[in-house]
Amino acid sequence: MLKIGIMGASGYAGEELLRILLDHPEVQITAVAAKIDPVNICKLYPWLKGRLDLECRDMSAEEMSKKCDMVFLALPHKASMQFAPIFLKKGLKVIDLSADFRIKDVNVYEKWYELKHECPEYIKDAVYGLPEFYRKEVKKADLIANPGCYPTSVILGCAPLLKKNLVDPDSIISDSKSGVSGAGRVLAQALMSKELENSFKPYKVNAHRHMPEIDQEIALMAGSKVSVNFVPHLVPMERGMMSTIYLQLKKNISTSEALKLYKDFYSKEYFVRVMDEGIFPDTKNVVRTNFCDIGCKVFPEKSLVIVVTAIDNLVKGASGQAVQNMNIMYGFEEKLGLN
Amino acid sequence: MLKIGIMGASGYAGEELLRILLDHPEVQITAVAAKIDPVNICKLYPWLKGRLDLECRDMSAEEMSKKCDMVFLALPHKASMQFAPIFLKKGLKVIDLSADFRIKDVNVYEKWYELKHECPEYIKDAVYGLPEFYRKEVKKADLIANPGCYPTSVILGCAPLLKKNLVDPDSIISDSKSGVSGAGRVLAQALMSKELENSFKPYKVNAHRHMPEIDQEIALMAGSKVSVNFVPHLVPMERGMMSTIYLQLKKNISTSEALKLYKDFYSKEYFVRVMDEGIFPDTKNVVRTNFCDIGCKVFPEKSLVIVVTAIDNLVKGASGQAVQNMNIMYGFEEKLGLN
Amino acid sequence: MLKIGIMGASGYAGEELLRILLDHPEVQITAVAAKIDPVNICKLYPWLKGRLDLECRDMSAEEMSKKCDMVFLALPHKASMQFAPIFLKKGLKVIDLSADFRIKDVNVYEKWYELKHECPEYIKDAVYGLPEFYRKEVKKADLIANPGCYPTSVILGCAPLLKKNLVDPDSIISDSKSGVSGAGRVLAQALMSKELENSFKPYKVNAHRHMPEIDQEIALMAGSKVSVNFVPHLVPMERGMMSTIYLQLKKNISTSEALKLYKDFYSKEYFVRVMDEGIFPDTKNVVRTNFCDIGCKVFPEKSLVIVVTAIDNLVKGASGQAVQNMNIMYGFEEKLGLN
Amino acid sequence: MLKIGIMGASGYAGEELLRILLDHPEVQITAVAAKIDPVNICKLYPWLKGRLDLECRDMSAEEMSKKCDMVFLALPHKASMQFAPIFLKKGLKVIDLSADFRIKDVNVYEKWYELKHECPEYIKDAVYGLPEFYRKEVKKADLIANPGCYPTSVILGCAPLLKKNLVDPDSIISDSKSGVSGAGRVLAQALMSKELENSFKPYKVNAHRHMPEIDQEIALMAGSKVSVNFVPHLVPMERGMMSTIYLQLKKNISTSEALKLYKDFYSKEYFVRVMDEGIFPDTKNVVRTNFCDIGCKVFPEKSLVIVVTAIDNLVKGASGQAVQNMNIMYGFEEKLGLN
Repeated sequence: MLKIGIMGASGYAGEELLRILLDHPEVQITAVAAKIDPVNICKLYPWLKGRLDLECRDMSAEEMSKKCDMVFLALPHKASMQFAPIFLKKGLKVIDLSADFRIKDVNVYEKWYELKHECPEYIKDAVYGLPEFYRKEVKKADLIANPGCYPTSVILGCAPLLKKNLVDPDSIISDSKSGVSGAGRVLAQALMSKELENSFKPYKVNAHRHMPEIDQEIALMAGSKVSVNFVPHLVPMERGMMSTIYLQLKKNISTSEALKLYKDFYSKEYFVRVMDEGIFPDTKNVVRTNFCDIGCKVFPEKSLVIVVTAIDNLVKGASGQAVQNMNIMYGFEEKLGLN
Repeated sequence: MLKIGIMGASGYAGEELLRILLDHPEVQITAVAAKIDPVNICKLYPWLKGRLDLECRDMSAEEMSKKCDMVFLALPHKASMQFAPIFLKKGLKVIDLSADFRIKDVNVYEKWYELKHECPEYIKDAVYGLPEFYRKEVKKADLIANPGCYPTSVILGCAPLLKKNLVDPDSIISDSKSGVSGAGRVLAQALMSKELENSFKPYKVNAHRHMPEIDQEIALMAGSKVSVNFVPHLVPMERGMMSTIYLQLKKNISTSEALKLYKDFYSKEYFVRVMDEGIFPDTKNVVRTNFCDIGCKVFPEKSLVIVVTAIDNLVKGASGQAVQNMNIMYGFEEKLGLN
Repeated sequence: MLKIGIMGASGYAGEELLRILLDHPEVQITAVAAKIDPVNICKLYPWLKGRLDLECRDMSAEEMSKKCDMVFLALPHKASMQFAPIFLKKGLKVIDLSADFRIKDVNVYEKWYELKHECPEYIKDAVYGLPEFYRKEVKKADLIANPGCYPTSVILGCAPLLKKNLVDPDSIISDSKSGVSGAGRVLAQALMSKELENSFKPYKVNAHRHMPEIDQEIALMAGSKVSVNFVPHLVPMERGMMSTIYLQLKKNISTSEALKLYKDFYSKEYFVRVMDEGIFPDTKNVVRTNFCDIGCKVFPEKSLVIVVTAIDNLVKGASGQAVQNMNIMYGFEEKLGLN
Repeated sequence: MLKIGIMGASGYAGEELLRILLDHPEVQITAVAAKIDPVNICKLYPWLKGRLDLECRDMSAEEMSKKCDMVFLALPHKASMQFAPIFLKKGLKVIDLSADFRIKDVNVYEKWYELKHECPEYIKDAVYGLPEFYRKEVKKADLIANPGCYPTSVILGCAPLLKKNLVDPDSIISDSKSGVSGAGRVLAQALMSKELENSFKPYKVNAHRHMPEIDQEIALMAGSKVSVNFVPHLVPMERGMMSTIYLQLKKNISTSEALKLYKDFYSKEYFVRVMDEGIFPDTKNVVRTNFCDIGCKVFPEKSLVIVVTAIDNLVKGASGQAVQNMNIMYGFEEKLGLN
């Protein structure tokens, strides 16, 4: 049994990791930490009563490293960069759910996150943990930069067309929508239940921190610098994320050709499901799963292709993908614990 | 007191008309009809108990025309075209909330709605009831074709840029979102409460019947044939509608110039509120009101302008706008009963 | 025009007062205060944009008293007792939505609210503002102690049976349920939208601060000391409150006799609607209204009567009732502004 | 691998069975039937795409019996009694989720369900599948009458006090609340999403079909005929069920004594979790699990004990409990597939 530590167990991603790993047959959760007064994890999450008996408290990386074989950092950015190096030096593998090691260009990172990176030397070897594209690298990695939820939904949606050079990467518009858990367990007036009654709204219009991450990966696929238009919206539901992506075709293809391209491209990917013609994703079909559903339709008169992707922001968009990465790193079956 | 009849009182638009007109100081609801077994309107809508005492039942246009001075047709398309001519011949004014008289080209109507129009001769004189653009015509009209909810949200959002010839009308992409009441009081599995848990999804992708209506009005503003890209989505909330509209600028302007343009354009329109720079609409601020809130932002690198509009699909998108039209037709203060 | 000040405009009750009073034809809102940095009220509540233009900020009672003829205190308990005396001395009438002047026995108040009352001499003359029972006193009052939401729902439900001496007051069990806005605009983890997904739960089981208020009024009706069993629950919806009340009959009556009793008792009360036999209230029929709906059913084998009441916790349970009291105090029509 | 058939796969209980059994390591779903036109189960439930490939269609018991070793009947009452005998005669074990075999007295069944039972001879040997009380009988049963959701929540809550003869069984009042999935996948106006906005309401007040089932089991525990007061309510959330139960104590005990009694009583029951003093269940902690959480508090002045239970109506209240029964019948670990 692989012994697992979770830093940031009091946040939504941490809670989701607990939910997934609790039933994973190859691992045992042996340490949970959070910046809170010591409390049994069952007090924090009453749904765990009778299922897990651990104290959750503030813990140094040194202490946690003695209790486990690998750690998940379900921490906000900036916190992760303080812990990751210590674990790595102690020989533990680290899967970091924050943004701290995702952006290869440290200047870009520092500009968007408005702080100085404390250990930029670790960025180079961190693997961007999108298994559909970096499986080989994940297998050998010691440090995984687990992708953001929006980037996962956008990159999986654009990749087949980009890799075949069928679309103008500069034309990409992603109109994205997220359930409220995407904001994390933050005490904010705007996330109070009453405030969300009949409330649908955009936020950080073309100014969201996931943009440089999307641009980086899209550019790698397109082979040129790219800046994507990205408008996220908040949906008054617990979880689920959809990206409706508009791309300009370089040459016209039919909807069925486009769908065939997607099906071929993802034919070996268990967690990516391409819909049949005329069918589009619905977030409810992916919530609490690690699947990414994709549908698309071409409008020949406009040389426009519309791609729609759906994921659960907390699973394929965070903790599920993190476990998928762990499975790959340790040679477990990739979908173990994820059904 | 103007005596009002409502045909289709059992649907959502009919119910919303009751809600609004009940407190309107210049009118009295004197007849309510629906294709149902006769029942007191309070049985149908218990919230009306003690406030309105009328029998609701199937009623011929002839019978209703004796009970009232004007009628609202809150009916599905096809039903309206059967009733409207009878009322008009009897000298009653008609505000029709269906699509039957909105599309000027009867061939386009017949293609999209898959039926033969039974009284195309009435289309010409029907006034498209978007008061912000057709107030003068509304004032003199006998038959109002009350706009669809999506068209209202898209047209109000695009008009200032189109009328100033600042954008390419063929580039318009409207990514629109509607609360579930937009579908009408239809018994559909997909609209059952449980099915909508964490469910966000697109539907009728570039195939919605509101498209020809949008195209018609945009074309009139642009002075050329237009076909807009339009992807509607269903939001798991009761009401509220948002359109996030992407338009290609012909020449670059700044966000503040764009907002000034919008503020000037709508300066005399009580029901259109243009947000300040950096602020975007939230559907919760317009639900149960007749307001349309508009925000916008320009991305100069892409010559792209993003316009976001929010309305209540049942109010400004249907029954509120219908009452606004009635106020204009009868010389009442335009916002009477709409606060 | 009566000039109105609102203290505590940043809370839910304050917001609801704004919503109701904005369209009240006899009043004008002239001052809004809250313990926040100065801000235009439209920034705080974007739905007010274009409709009200006032600065909202921390304000002394002295300053506010110069701007208005009467004030609503939409404040937490303890805050109200600091402001009310100042307004009263300046000759303004005060409607207090907190609990500070509701409990006649100051010792009971101090025990339940765990603090020392600062001006107990004002309690005696404060009128408990349940118009259905204290209309005459309200008319002459200078200080209204506006009832709590739960007490309103329980007292209106029990009164007819108690006043006719038909039930054992000591047997009363009220299983009550409230939408989340009942908790007020409090930043609490438990009220975050995600936490409320599929969350229904009891809280403060037989320990809620509304209990002494219920007991006081029930005792006055029963003519003896009473302690009611009261279990409140939180419903994952914005607003609406239901009390399902179980009472032991002293002698058996039929359901139709019970309903006749209720209908007679409330025959002159516009805001209390008694359902017909077999029909029970639904919160959705009272939300955003000042109505209290009541249904009941007798179980002769058990000599048990079940009474169900529904109100909107923010309207009849708070701000609507406060405006109803204002209308009575100033001789306006009682339902003015409340439809 | 045990081969499983599901009759009634198109309903909510059937869907939940699919969800649970899909990942059960000892079984394989080999047949799914429903009264619908033939369709791949993935069309019906898009979340199954890539995970299960079976045609779902109308199927005779004879045909299904050839495809599997045991069947779940997720059917409405009346339908089950037509299928069960055929399966049993063919030697298959049957777990019936309907009410058809729950009520031992066929006259009571026929009165409440308003129909003639077609095979009353099977009722005697059917085992009421509440494992916490009938585990031994379940182990040997061929036909399980899987309990209703409300009865499960009420019986588990009352049993310890009843079995110790501490409460008056005739005093029991259960104020119960259910998420909307409790109504089944029924197309009903009242269950449409929009209708449920801010809608909380009672229904079938002391007239619900689960009452004779509750009375039967309570009577067995109490050793005397019992009729429980039972008021169910509909909560506007997807799933989750709570019963707040009021019982009159025959002799006073303290809250801690009561809780100790419950903890002892259920000490060997994995799926029943008794809360600590001062803590009450929240449906969110049991949704999508097979747990029943129980809290309680005594009010000595009233000799009243309040017991609160929470389950997921579709899991412990239906399909999860059915799988728990299957595990017992086939000697699998009782919680297999239920975490």
